[in-house]
Amino acid sequence: MAEAYQKEFFNVSFPVEYVAHVEINRPEKLNAFKEIMWLNLSAIFRQLSHDPSVRAVILTGAGDRAFTAGLDVQAASEGGALSSSGPDQDSARKANALRRHILEFQSCITDIEKCEKPVIAVLHGVSFGLALDMSLACDIRISTTTTKFSVKEVDIGLAADIGTLSRLPHSVGNLSWVKDIALSARIFGSDEALQHGLVSSVYKNKAEAVAQATKLATLIASKSPVAVLGTKEIINYSRDRPISEGLNYTAVWNAAMLQTQDVKDAMMSGLKKTTPKFSKL
Amino acid sequence: MAEAYQKEFFNVSFPVEYVAHVEINRPEKLNAFKEIMWLNLSAIFRQLSHDPSVRAVILTGAGDRAFTAGLDVQAASEGGALSSSGPDQDSARKANALRRHILEFQSCITDIEKCEKPVIAVLHGVSFGLALDMSLACDIRISTTTTKFSVKEVDIGLAADIGTLSRLPHSVGNLSWVKDIALSARIFGSDEALQHGLVSSVYKNKAEAVAQATKLATLIASKSPVAVLGTKEIINYSRDRPISEGLNYTAVWNAAMLQTQDVKDAMMSGLKKTTPKFSKL
Amino acid sequence: MAEAYQKEFFNVSFPVEYVAHVEINRPEKLNAFKEIMWLNLSAIFRQLSHDPSVRAVILTGAGDRAFTAGLDVQAASEGGALSSSGPDQDSARKANALRRHILEFQSCITDIEKCEKPVIAVLHGVSFGLALDMSLACDIRISTTTTKFSVKEVDIGLAADIGTLSRLPHSVGNLSWVKDIALSARIFGSDEALQHGLVSSVYKNKAEAVAQATKLATLIASKSPVAVLGTKEIINYSRDRPISEGLNYTAVWNAAMLQTQDVKDAMMSGLKKTTPKFSKL
Amino acid sequence: MAEAYQKEFFNVSFPVEYVAHVEINRPEKLNAFKEIMWLNLSAIFRQLSHDPSVRAVILTGAGDRAFTAGLDVQAASEGGALSSSGPDQDSARKANALRRHILEFQSCITDIEKCEKPVIAVLHGVSFGLALDMSLACDIRISTTTTKFSVKEVDIGLAADIGTLSRLPHSVGNLSWVKDIALSARIFGSDEALQHGLVSSVYKNKAEAVAQATKLATLIASKSPVAVLGTKEIINYSRDRPISEGLNYTAVWNAAMLQTQDVKDAMMSGLKKTTPKFSKL
Amino acid sequence: MAEAYQKEFFNVSFPVEYVAHVEINRPEKLNAFKEIMWLNLSAIFRQLSHDPSVRAVILTGAGDRAFTAGLDVQAASEGGALSSSGPDQDSARKANALRRHILEFQSCITDIEKCEKPVIAVLHGVSFGLALDMSLACDIRISTTTTKFSVKEVDIGLAADIGTLSRLPHSVGNLSWVKDIALSARIFGSDEALQHGLVSSVYKNKAEAVAQATKLATLIASKSPVAVLGTKEIINYSRDRPISEGLNYTAVWNAAMLQTQDVKDAMMSGLKKTTPKFSKL
Amino acid sequence: MAEAYQKEFFNVSFPVEYVAHVEINRPEKLNAFKEIMWLNLSAIFRQLSHDPSVRAVILTGAGDRAFTAGLDVQAASEGGALSSSGPDQDSARKANALRRHILEFQSCITDIEKCEKPVIAVLHGVSFGLALDMSLACDIRISTTTTKFSVKEVDIGLAADIGTLSRLPHSVGNLSWVKDIALSARIFGSDEALQHGLVSSVYKNKAEAVAQATKLATLIASKSPVAVLGTKEIINYSRDRPISEGLNYTAVWNAAMLQTQDVKDAMMSGLKKTTPKFSKL
Repeated sequence: MAEAYQKEFFNVSFPVEYVAHVEINRPEKLNAFKEIMWLNLSAIFRQLSHDPSVRAVILTGAGDRAFTAGLDVQAASEGGALSSSGPDQDSARKANALRRHILEFQSCITDIEKCEKPVIAVLHGVSFGLALDMSLACDIRISTTTTKFSVKEVDIGLAADIGTLSRLPHSVGNLSWVKDIALSARIFGSDEALQHGLVSSVYKNKAEAVAQATKLATLIASKSPVAVLGTKEIINYSRDRPISEGLNYTAVWNAAMLQTQDVKDAMMSGLKKTTPKFSKL
Repeated sequence: MAEAYQKEFFNVSFPVEYVAHVEINRPEKLNAFKEIMWLNLSAIFRQLSHDPSVRAVILTGAGDRAFTAGLDVQAASEGGALSSSGPDQDSARKANALRRHILEFQSCITDIEKCEKPVIAVLHGVSFGLALDMSLACDIRISTTTTKFSVKEVDIGLAADIGTLSRLPHSVGNLSWVKDIALSARIFGSDEALQHGLVSSVYKNKAEAVAQATKLATLIASKSPVAVLGTKEIINYSRDRPISEGLNYTAVWNAAMLQTQDVKDAMMSGLKKTTPKFSKL
Repeated sequence: MAEAYQKEFFNVSFPVEYVAHVEINRPEKLNAFKEIMWLNLSAIFRQLSHDPSVRAVILTGAGDRAFTAGLDVQAASEGGALSSSGPDQDSARKANALRRHILEFQSCITDIEKCEKPVIAVLHGVSFGLALDMSLACDIRISTTTTKFSVKEVDIGLAADIGTLSRLPHSVGNLSWVKDIALSARIFGSDEALQHGLVSSVYKNKAEAVAQATKLATLIASKSPVAVLGTKEIINYSRDRPISEGLNYTAVWNAAMLQTQDVKDAMMSGLKKTTPKFSKL
Repeated sequence: MAEAYQKEFFNVSFPVEYVAHVEINRPEKLNAFKEIMWLNLSAIFRQLSHDPSVRAVILTGAGDRAFTAGLDVQAASEGGALSSSGPDQDSARKANALRRHILEFQSCITDIEKCEKPVIAVLHGVSFGLALDMSLACDIRISTTTTKFSVKEVDIGLAADIGTLSRLPHSVGNLSWVKDIALSARIFGSDEALQHGLVSSVYKNKAEAVAQATKLATLIASKSPVAVLGTKEIINYSRDRPISEGLNYTAVWNAAMLQTQDVKDAMMSGLKKTTPKFSKL
Repeated sequence: MAEAYQKEFFNVSFPVEYVAHVEINRPEKLNAFKEIMWLNLSAIFRQLSHDPSVRAVILTGAGDRAFTAGLDVQAASEGGALSSSGPDQDSARKANALRRHILEFQSCITDIEKCEKPVIAVLHGVSFGLALDMSLACDIRISTTTTKFSVKEVDIGLAADIGTLSRLPHSVGNLSWVKDIALSARIFGSDEALQHGLVSSVYKNKAEAVAQATKLATLIASKSPVAVLGTKEIINYSRDRPISEGLNYTAVWNAAMLQTQDVKDAMMSGLKKTTPKFSKL
Repeated sequence: MAEAYQKEFFNVSFPVEYVAHVEINRPEKLNAFKEIMWLNLSAIFRQLSHDPSVRAVILTGAGDRAFTAGLDVQAASEGGALSSSGPDQDSARKANALRRHILEFQSCITDIEKCEKPVIAVLHGVSFGLALDMSLACDIRISTTTTKFSVKEVDIGLAADIGTLSRLPHSVGNLSWVKDIALSARIFGSDEALQHGLVSSVYKNKAEAVAQATKLATLIASKSPVAVLGTKEIINYSRDRPISEGLNYTAVWNAAMLQTQDVKDAMMSGLKKTTPKFSKL
């Protein structure tokens, strides 16, 4: 099954039934991203989204040093969107090319958010720039006592444009802190990340954090996949809209979803104290 | 006065002038809810909303064991919306019946939010499922050192649909934690609830928490009821909308409300250090 | 340069290159505001917004006793919008006059938010009422161990209408606490303000807080002004809208802004470990 | 069956299977409305909404002279919200009483829009004020060559507040004309109403219009009630929201509703050229 | 009184009590706009908005040839935002200067929409580019049989950015036609403008159109200014928002405004068939 | 060049420089759609969107009988989403499969709307169901005197879910008529379509309509592609949002786009009365 997911710069494994583990695999460059990597990431998450054998996903970086150091600046400056593309090109045409590029890049990262299964990011070591863009598109963020975070983009002369600035104010409950870290690009640790709400748990080291993420993923994977899908979808929908909108959407969503056999099985198991088995989604 | 509010499964009392205390009263079932209860709850809060003798409300559960254990699953599985309703019914027609049912149930709980007077929930003991749906529709949430919280719904095979998933992301400043508790249905305590912003204070035990809630309600009830109504309304309005929308609405709201005598009385009392008396709303 | 900014009740200085310091200067009245003051405040921030020599701004109150005690209630009760304006005036016409007044007052405070440069508020001493309205329109809020905060407005018989109630629920991650402080008008300290997300750091005293604010402002001022402007703008835009809206806006924004020379200079400096110099904005 | 619907000032009949006809019945006063009438109207439409024997509704006024002349101004000036209620009442408290009253009145009229079954308004004779509020909450508006329309409210000193001003700009494709009729309160005829989009057909006289409305209602009632419900709901939802929102909601809605047997029956009937029979909703 | 309004390139007169007539006065250039003109236009409408002696406004162009031919392209190419500003300027910095300029220009035109009094545009002769931006910010648009309309901007290489593209889809009921005229920049006449909803009446010539506009303005000015203000405000508010939002806003608005003496005076006049006199707003 | 676009059931040709003509090519089945066709349609429009040799697109159906008769119901009932998929499948799981399917189908049709180049639909002959879904995603709709339109979906037991119900209320200025045609599924002609705003011009027959569409496409293709792209994008953006949002977005968009050489070239050509040549986008 892992074979179906093999893509350059990524390892995908299945440590537990129904749990997938996606590993960014370019440790010699601190897992820095070049274009092929976000295209591959997107392909993997679109596949996981509809894979009936997957009910929860973990995202980590290979090696001990970094989740990811962010964009591979050298690669970007040599051939990508940030390289100069001829001094004589029309500024508006160049703007449109950049717009297309940013929208495509964003769309790849948003495929994590759109994945029907919950995704747990384990932020460890260097977690700069794209590390935040990606993990903010995940559902749950945990980290280690030595994680180094930074919204790094102002240090390369730009406003972060792959999602961090759009998702942070909806993920974290201290807007003053959001502005502080985004405007200063300073490095901060898990203590601040936990205090202000960027992560929900901190563990001793990467091994421990991955173990706990696996445990949590396993727990989630034991629940009704219909209930889990609805929970992720409705929270994301409601996060972006007035409460009255969220309530109405929930009613329409559950009009179909409450008809599942899972409700009866789960209730019966609850009353009988047995473990329910749910069909694949 | 309390008589006017008597409904099965609820006690309503008036411990202090202008303060109402609503108690969910089915302690032998851990205050679990069946349909008549949310209909009664709604009726009580609609009445409190327009009652000129009420300026603040406290919501608790009877007994020491639970605020509420949530939906009475046994009752629901026997006769309610979650029971099977004949294998041969058309799926779309069943969906519409479920939609009507969910909307009506949501509407009952939202009547707490729509109540013109602030509502303080004292979460104590078992506070599962509907306990969160209801308390998130309240204005202020406090708890005790032994409160056990759980967004329990995935454990019965469904996405919580009476408000928790819509209100949590607007109430709490750690979206990772919101997803963690909603996807895992795990039980957590007041320490987490306070750290991540679900409650704003934690007290030693239920008695202490109710005493503090009464004190806070009394304080709020001593303020201008015009000012208190506007503060609740504008915060709820603004929570759901862009800041520019909130500001404009506030201007229109206060165009009428600043004309109250209460402003003059309150200012004068402030300058003279006396206690103002405000007319009923 | 400071001369161009002199307005009654305000000092504007430039302690460091590219950093402006705006001081509310009416210490004998605890920096309480009368109408001319918010008009002057607005004029100052509109000028700072387009001043190419300014890249970050600090806002403080003169003296040790107060950031500001809020509205000058005595002045307001004598001649302003809150004074009685003849018992026989038509209620609707009075409402429209009040609406115009509130909208204009709000607009002055919102000019802080609209200022293209980040603004850091140092909340010290008495920080009541308008202190919150103003600092919530700033980007970063820090305070001292002795700051006294209060959403004071219900104590003068009105719902806060210059921004606090609209901005608080989008700035702070504990809606229960937001309602608690806004409905009770109680005084609270920096410990609560930090715990619940109203400020992002607390310092020993005013001197230390101003020193740290200056350090942070200097750091921000050392970054590309194009990147800093975009970061402020996109966070504010995204705070108020669904994530998909934020992402699309970011793409259009950066379509122009990525064409800046600053990206190349910043990248090159990063690779060469030198300090970049950026043109004025 | 008609008996279950009898309310003062209304006749409800069932001219054709699955078609209800609601008639406003106070012809001696040009069907002008007093409070009991909108409360009764609301009760009737809430009942029709869930009545499985009803699939389409027609709304008319009794007699030849008027659909309705609008609010019964004399009644309103004597005892209702528009009467003076004591010169010494606090302006803010009076404002809140008015707000409650308007919201309740609006809610009654909106029950027409919320009715799950399509509603066809036949606007004939005098159709002033509330005639527009009500018919704009209907799905389809038709009229006669002699209908006299007017957005009458500015002539009694107020901005129309029961729905006309909110619904007109979303119902009609000429905003200049919307402002013209709403600001001038002038009387206009069916030619303008048809040209600018307020009605979709005009018939010779009331009898002909009612006959055509019945024919259209009968046609709609012959379709799958699942399809008709969804069509009304999705158009109303989409009218108020961006297209991307409408599309997503449609997908969730139809996820349940496409599972109906009606699709198979309708397709089969289409291929076989027979008339399908659909179960009750 | 007219003197208080004199500004270069504009005539302001008061043909009838409570009616102001603003005339764009640069007929030798077909009333084409340069920067000082939109600044003056804004100043005039901000003043009219709060002038108690004004209850309705008419906007025309001087001379028979044009309402306005739009932007003065020659002036713009020589010194304005569209002129080249040095080939070596940083593209991002230039973008920000353009953004500031467009926002300021838009804001001037939007001051027509924000004017508390209804504005009637008489589109006559050449009505290109800015003629549409401006008249779409007016409330009512009328024209003559010889008016020549064009959304001219694509012909000078740009997407119209002063409001036409944002306001057209909310003003006109044929989106296909909106795209047709905006993408082709073709010249069209009053027949199309009336058919598709851009204007609400067409008159023989300018004199007749101005006479009719004056008549309509006089009629509007005879109504309660409280009712007229509310009607304009609520239609504009509702045009931009879901119907439920419009309804709630209306209730809050009218909570204050129904307290006006005008309601009683208007009702009484209606019953007695006299002409009411309303106080100034 | 046409070769690069060849896909089964579609012809793509280039009748004029910069103009593409996409023809639905299944005339023997009245151009009815099966799944491969909407996938191919999407691929074609995504390619056209970024093709620098294309500046405007025409969409027609092959043959004289139909633009398209809509969904190929027979194919759908045999193997697609509407076929029965086993009576024993869990209703919730089936709902999720349907949701995925609808979202994907919608996304294919929305690719027409997302195409950066304007698209003109020529509706001729039978134009049922999907004909409206598709043409409402186009920018301009024209038809012939014999076009037969129908929102056909309720006749096959479902609410139209590929875009018609979401786009109609934003495209057409008579909501009563929108509900009439959508609820009754009745066939109507070009006279109604033009009167109520569904199409913007009607021509004698298909040949004439295609000729006029080509002429219009050629005209649009002669304009600055930067201006045309912005015009399409800003109208679509503004259609879905409040006017203030549209204005701000326009300012950010044009901050980049006004820097184009096209503005200078177009202005110069305008003054010199020459024909400008614009670079490819």
